[in-house]
Amino acid sequence: MEPDRFRTRRTFLGSGLGLGALWTAAAVACRNQGAAPPAEPRALGAPVSGYGMRSRHETTARYVNQNTNVPLEEASSRAPLHDTYGIITPSSLHFERHHAGVPEIDPAAHTLTIHGLVDRPLVFSVAELKRLPSKSRIHFLECSGNSASEWRGSGESDVQRAHGLTSCSEWTGVSLAVLLKECGVQPAGTWILAEGADPCRLARSIPMRKAMDDVMVVYGQNGEPLRPEQGYPLRLLVPGWEGNVNVKWLRRIKVLDQPAMTRWETSKYTDLLSDGSARQFTFDMDAKSIITRPSGGDTLPGPGTYELTGLAWSGRGAITRVEITTDGGQTWTPAELQSPILARAHTRFRWSWTWDGGETSIASRCTDETGYVQPALAELVTVRGHNSNYHNNAIQVWKVGADGHLSNGTRA
Amino acid sequence: MEPDRFRTRRTFLGSGLGLGALWTAAAVACRNQGAAPPAEPRALGAPVSGYGMRSRHETTARYVNQNTNVPLEEASSRAPLHDTYGIITPSSLHFERHHAGVPEIDPAAHTLTIHGLVDRPLVFSVAELKRLPSKSRIHFLECSGNSASEWRGSGESDVQRAHGLTSCSEWTGVSLAVLLKECGVQPAGTWILAEGADPCRLARSIPMRKAMDDVMVVYGQNGEPLRPEQGYPLRLLVPGWEGNVNVKWLRRIKVLDQPAMTRWETSKYTDLLSDGSARQFTFDMDAKSIITRPSGGDTLPGPGTYELTGLAWSGRGAITRVEITTDGGQTWTPAELQSPILARAHTRFRWSWTWDGGETSIASRCTDETGYVQPALAELVTVRGHNSNYHNNAIQVWKVGADGHLSNGTRA
Repeated sequence: MEPDRFRTRRTFLGSGLGLGALWTAAAVACRNQGAAPPAEPRALGAPVSGYGMRSRHETTARYVNQNTNVPLEEASSRAPLHDTYGIITPSSLHFERHHAGVPEIDPAAHTLTIHGLVDRPLVFSVAELKRLPSKSRIHFLECSGNSASEWRGSGESDVQRAHGLTSCSEWTGVSLAVLLKECGVQPAGTWILAEGADPCRLARSIPMRKAMDDVMVVYGQNGEPLRPEQGYPLRLLVPGWEGNVNVKWLRRIKVLDQPAMTRWETSKYTDLLSDGSARQFTFDMDAKSIITRPSGGDTLPGPGTYELTGLAWSGRGAITRVEITTDGGQTWTPAELQSPILARAHTRFRWSWTWDGGETSIASRCTDETGYVQPALAELVTVRGHNSNYHNNAIQVWKVGADGHLSNGTRA
Repeated sequence: MEPDRFRTRRTFLGSGLGLGALWTAAAVACRNQGAAPPAEPRALGAPVSGYGMRSRHETTARYVNQNTNVPLEEASSRAPLHDTYGIITPSSLHFERHHAGVPEIDPAAHTLTIHGLVDRPLVFSVAELKRLPSKSRIHFLECSGNSASEWRGSGESDVQRAHGLTSCSEWTGVSLAVLLKECGVQPAGTWILAEGADPCRLARSIPMRKAMDDVMVVYGQNGEPLRPEQGYPLRLLVPGWEGNVNVKWLRRIKVLDQPAMTRWETSKYTDLLSDGSARQFTFDMDAKSIITRPSGGDTLPGPGTYELTGLAWSGRGAITRVEITTDGGQTWTPAELQSPILARAHTRFRWSWTWDGGETSIASRCTDETGYVQPALAELVTVRGHNSNYHNNAIQVWKVGADGHLSNGTRA
């Protein structure tokens, strides 16, 4: 194959996508060839199979920080947001956050107990839950500690390390309201405690109002059973709320008349403010967006037109707008939002950018259906101070150098 | 764990899903327990990892018919529709249909050539295609030979064997129109020929009107790169059209002034009618639905209320209605359609059925946005005769015995 490429500017014809952009050889380098492609090997390929795997040429993986004192059973792994497409995160690459490792659970022996302030405490097997009325929903999950490294500005070098604790799946299961009503919640029952079967028995309190709304007990993820790292065989799915309340390996729900004040909602997962007080039960994940490509660590090969793409989401509903700046925040222009735009799900945005070769900064800023606008980090810090780690939904700025290299440009 | 279960009828409280159904112990058997669940092992679990796999307890697989004279490189494998959830088919379980096996392709060496009646023949590397404006769409793919065994009625025993040559994914890639416009299609160019890099060079002709509409060159499937069985690193995605024109391992597109009349559109993939003539270029997959659970091979444990669920899709647009009969076709009632309902995508339907324990037949029938209604097999045969194998979109009937066993009840 002749490697010569057109390196001169040329007009990229109207794309039918309404982009009408000027694409240069830097963005799309094509080889001009008049003939059919060269012959390729014609040996018979591999046979059909029962369960497929990805190509051996693909090695994208979750990022695990090996250089901390945290044991890998009490750690996180981050989704490769730079290298994933669309809105569905592959289950194999869904971020992880465990507190005592992934338990090995036999689904035939696992049960969910619902007890406490109910008329009829009940135990459900996994098979029994699968026979109940089901529903599927596409929702993101984000760890409240996502982007924690970025609170004080310019933390991690790339989007995976900085923001990879978010993922989006199609979840299938049973409405928790169906189960709670079957048990007969007593009038005093205003909270539930959900407990996992992991060795540390992670447990979180959730108000009954939410439990009776859109919470699900899920057994399916992206069409197949939940993955072990995501709570196999059962997890709680609490749409739009911080990851850790979506209790994995769910074994027990107790109906209470007040929150249980577990260590995961007192010493952990609270937000220390400047005056020494702490926000508690900060369940909702506020609207957030990130340009995932190009992003930190990428190098643009030269001036020209590039597609900017990324993800936006809000725990409070659907994303209604994503704006892009490519001049360091002086001007903002709406990006294209890809359909379907679903409430409490990742939304893919795209925008066509012609880079003139100069130093600049690029960023995205989203708005959700409540009218909430994603803040700059400085705005967030004004309200929350410098002590917080959780719930950082600030705008991520990527700095573009004259050499085309992108780096973390967020300033506190 | 005490195995005693409530076996008497009891009222299942309003579910909040609007079902208000009477659930019996057969449908939901719960154990009444007043206390917390028994202690489970508390050994530390597994650490975080780079790329996850399913639980060792899950063994659902594609079905491969080993009992034919067809070599497994020129065969199909069928998706386990009975055991998948929601609308996304896991990539590992997406059906396969190969004509010369799955080629091993190095994406760094693979190219797509566009030539023929164009002003600027071009060759694109995979990396170059990934830099172009992208889009993602959720679409089904169905082999035109799906359900071929059912043309003469009561073929296969279960839904996977009978109808498993359909799947649905989120696909990401480039609009083919973008590439064709870049090459400058000449006025005489009214068809394209798309050719794969499999050893048999499967090639199909597609009218330019469709090629310039919604066809994509895709490199992403469910968030990660295409799987080898689905065309890695590049395939054509022709929304709503029969599987084989969605050419896998795409290496070449030639612009022509007429169809190429390859062997895959003359000797194969044409539909022989009763008068000896054949339908050719029958691209569109007409509206179709199947109850996937309960279905052939299942046994209902006793009278009671069950969730019927299944999939509906149409190559001509969105599904607007799915109706269910549980009395052998005397009455039909609309099922609940799960959002999002997307054009040319699987649509999940659900319906609550109270079985009285008597012999009966159940079936689903769908309507699409063009007003087309899925036919009974007898209606299809009246028009197409008995010689056809492709494009069977007839209603699937499941017969329910007094013993609760479900079997194939479709009659020609």
